[in-house]
Amino acid sequence: MERPRVGELAPPDRLLMGPGPSEVHPRVLRAMSTPLVGHLDPSFIDVMDDVQDLLRYAFQTENQWTIPVSGTGSASMEAAIGNLTEPGDTVLVPGNGYFGERMAAMVTRAGGDPVFVEAPWGEPLDPVAVEDAFTEYRPDLFAFVHAETSTGAKQPNVPELTAIAHDHDALVIADTVTSLGGVELRVDEWGIDVAYAGPQKCLSCPPGASPLTLNDRAMAKICTRDTPVRSWYLDLSLLQEYWGDERAYHHTAPITNVYALREALRLVAEEGIENRWERHRRMAGALKAGVEAMGLELNPEDDWWLPSLNAVRLPEGVDDDAVIAFLLEEYGIEVAGGLGDLAGDVLRIGCMGHSARPGNVLTLVAALGDALEAQNAAVETSAGLDATRTLLGR
Amino acid sequence: MERPRVGELAPPDRLLMGPGPSEVHPRVLRAMSTPLVGHLDPSFIDVMDDVQDLLRYAFQTENQWTIPVSGTGSASMEAAIGNLTEPGDTVLVPGNGYFGERMAAMVTRAGGDPVFVEAPWGEPLDPVAVEDAFTEYRPDLFAFVHAETSTGAKQPNVPELTAIAHDHDALVIADTVTSLGGVELRVDEWGIDVAYAGPQKCLSCPPGASPLTLNDRAMAKICTRDTPVRSWYLDLSLLQEYWGDERAYHHTAPITNVYALREALRLVAEEGIENRWERHRRMAGALKAGVEAMGLELNPEDDWWLPSLNAVRLPEGVDDDAVIAFLLEEYGIEVAGGLGDLAGDVLRIGCMGHSARPGNVLTLVAALGDALEAQNAAVETSAGLDATRTLLGR
Repeated sequence: MERPRVGELAPPDRLLMGPGPSEVHPRVLRAMSTPLVGHLDPSFIDVMDDVQDLLRYAFQTENQWTIPVSGTGSASMEAAIGNLTEPGDTVLVPGNGYFGERMAAMVTRAGGDPVFVEAPWGEPLDPVAVEDAFTEYRPDLFAFVHAETSTGAKQPNVPELTAIAHDHDALVIADTVTSLGGVELRVDEWGIDVAYAGPQKCLSCPPGASPLTLNDRAMAKICTRDTPVRSWYLDLSLLQEYWGDERAYHHTAPITNVYALREALRLVAEEGIENRWERHRRMAGALKAGVEAMGLELNPEDDWWLPSLNAVRLPEGVDDDAVIAFLLEEYGIEVAGGLGDLAGDVLRIGCMGHSARPGNVLTLVAALGDALEAQNAAVETSAGLDATRTLLGR
Repeated sequence: MERPRVGELAPPDRLLMGPGPSEVHPRVLRAMSTPLVGHLDPSFIDVMDDVQDLLRYAFQTENQWTIPVSGTGSASMEAAIGNLTEPGDTVLVPGNGYFGERMAAMVTRAGGDPVFVEAPWGEPLDPVAVEDAFTEYRPDLFAFVHAETSTGAKQPNVPELTAIAHDHDALVIADTVTSLGGVELRVDEWGIDVAYAGPQKCLSCPPGASPLTLNDRAMAKICTRDTPVRSWYLDLSLLQEYWGDERAYHHTAPITNVYALREALRLVAEEGIENRWERHRRMAGALKAGVEAMGLELNPEDDWWLPSLNAVRLPEGVDDDAVIAFLLEEYGIEVAGGLGDLAGDVLRIGCMGHSARPGNVLTLVAALGDALEAQNAAVETSAGLDATRTLLGR
């Protein structure tokens, strides 16, 4: 068999302003090139401890079971849903975006029955609808999406939702993939039992090891299951032997990704989590002001605007694929189109982690203006740039 | 909540001569620090194509479905077993090592019934016993371990085993975690239907994206299942939309790990797969000659000696933990102890990928002699070093 001839790794230089991955900080890239120690090396135990402490801070939780799952965000999602769902369980999931549908698929795979709280795509769940769904379905679990990457909608009033669930003796799982490290999130204070995330959004870390936190009540449900979890790889009752006191071998951890996550989380701690939320709000606020002054609208209302992911409605007649291609080809900027009910109608512009910086925001607004003008859309690019610069304080 | 105070990432400098991870080549470390593009970027599609081509070469297969799974070796293992096992399927697994037991656990999670071909720990499967097990259990699948990391035993006569399975209309899954890229493996020629591996063994790549290959017959079984695969994350019928022609979003790929795997596999192609197998045989042969001349024995017989993982029997009365700790503390060398039936009796010394170099082999033999002498074992370290040097041709 002939040897394949493959040239040097030479990816183009992109500015990542899409739904993730975001730009990775140079310190995190450097951490990724650190020579490895073994996953059972005594020194790696210290690294694991550090990562757990730093993750607790990012999640604002005291939960002992706070770990990186060995996979990308969908792996931490399936770890949460697959471990908490027992065959026959009814699980209430949100009907207002792409990731609620994925939750439902995972519930089914785990042998549970998904039921939906209905809400239009791009809007948050209404607590009244959640209460009604609890009365109607009596679910064992309630999963919601704190920050919907597919629609740019943030779920407000989280404590109200968790209170409803707890009044009905259900556990709560929160998808915080696009909020962790960028948007206010208080796992303990808000009564969230289980939260999972991806590292490549507001933490600006390459994907491969994904944050997950569970409180004791959630771990108790897992450890008293009648049937084993359907994935051996993601079985938290086995994983706790590696991440807990025993440090017993379960599977090989993605060592380098854990190094990178540690560095990305150190940057979070150095900045301070509240400062980081405020930076995202300020940078995305300047971006939002810019596109609005340009004459565009954001899809979500201000009450549920998600700073880390801005769903911008395209003017009538503008082809989203053409705009996306223009930004990529002319400026090397990655943004994405809409999904599901919003396909073709919006651009999804991220403002996450290390991407959420003044220069990137200005570049994005200017380049977006160019891309829309190239499509003959009537936009006020200069007005947009002025508004952005004003909010950036320049 | 207080910010955790966590210092700079500063792991000790180790020489990795255990059961994995192995030493990572500087070019692969450098690939890991490459800034990211998005997982749906047109340029990443080319990277995916390259990785698939290079993986086919390493596996010696023409299989279209040859991909890295987004997780560590146990994820590719569960992808293979979980996708091929349908509820009610009988799966024949090996009883001669640790990883056969893991296979059985995964079969159970998938709803199948594991049955065992018995063989002592540390010995290969006997084709007669496999034939008998087929007659007795009529399994739908047969999984075996080509290179048992827990015992250092290589399974010889693979084509004989696959022929038995095919005569009984069963598909064959091979665990090649510790052979891919280091020990002769010919997926197509040997009639293996599905093979999976980890990247952190003979490919010397950080763990996080793990090789998997399936032929059309295996994919046909997956695509005609009566019930969905029990893991959404690892469902190959969904993953094929991302890795196949559609390139549709399934989950975020671990982009950086894919970059690293590409570079590690480029190094395999540059060296030539047969040359690489020969290098492993020669380096591990020098290591084996050294420990034997020192007065020690390898656990496996020569017929099933596994160059990439050398299980060395410890002299009577020597404490394995003390030897392992001495090597780590005095020399910064990682080796491992035995598992299961071999716990306490052997050291497991890897000779994999970038670790399989003359200087490392000499260092290991010398340091092992010191460690055993520190335990008052009667070993001929000088004779061992002479034998090693002779076989290294120095």
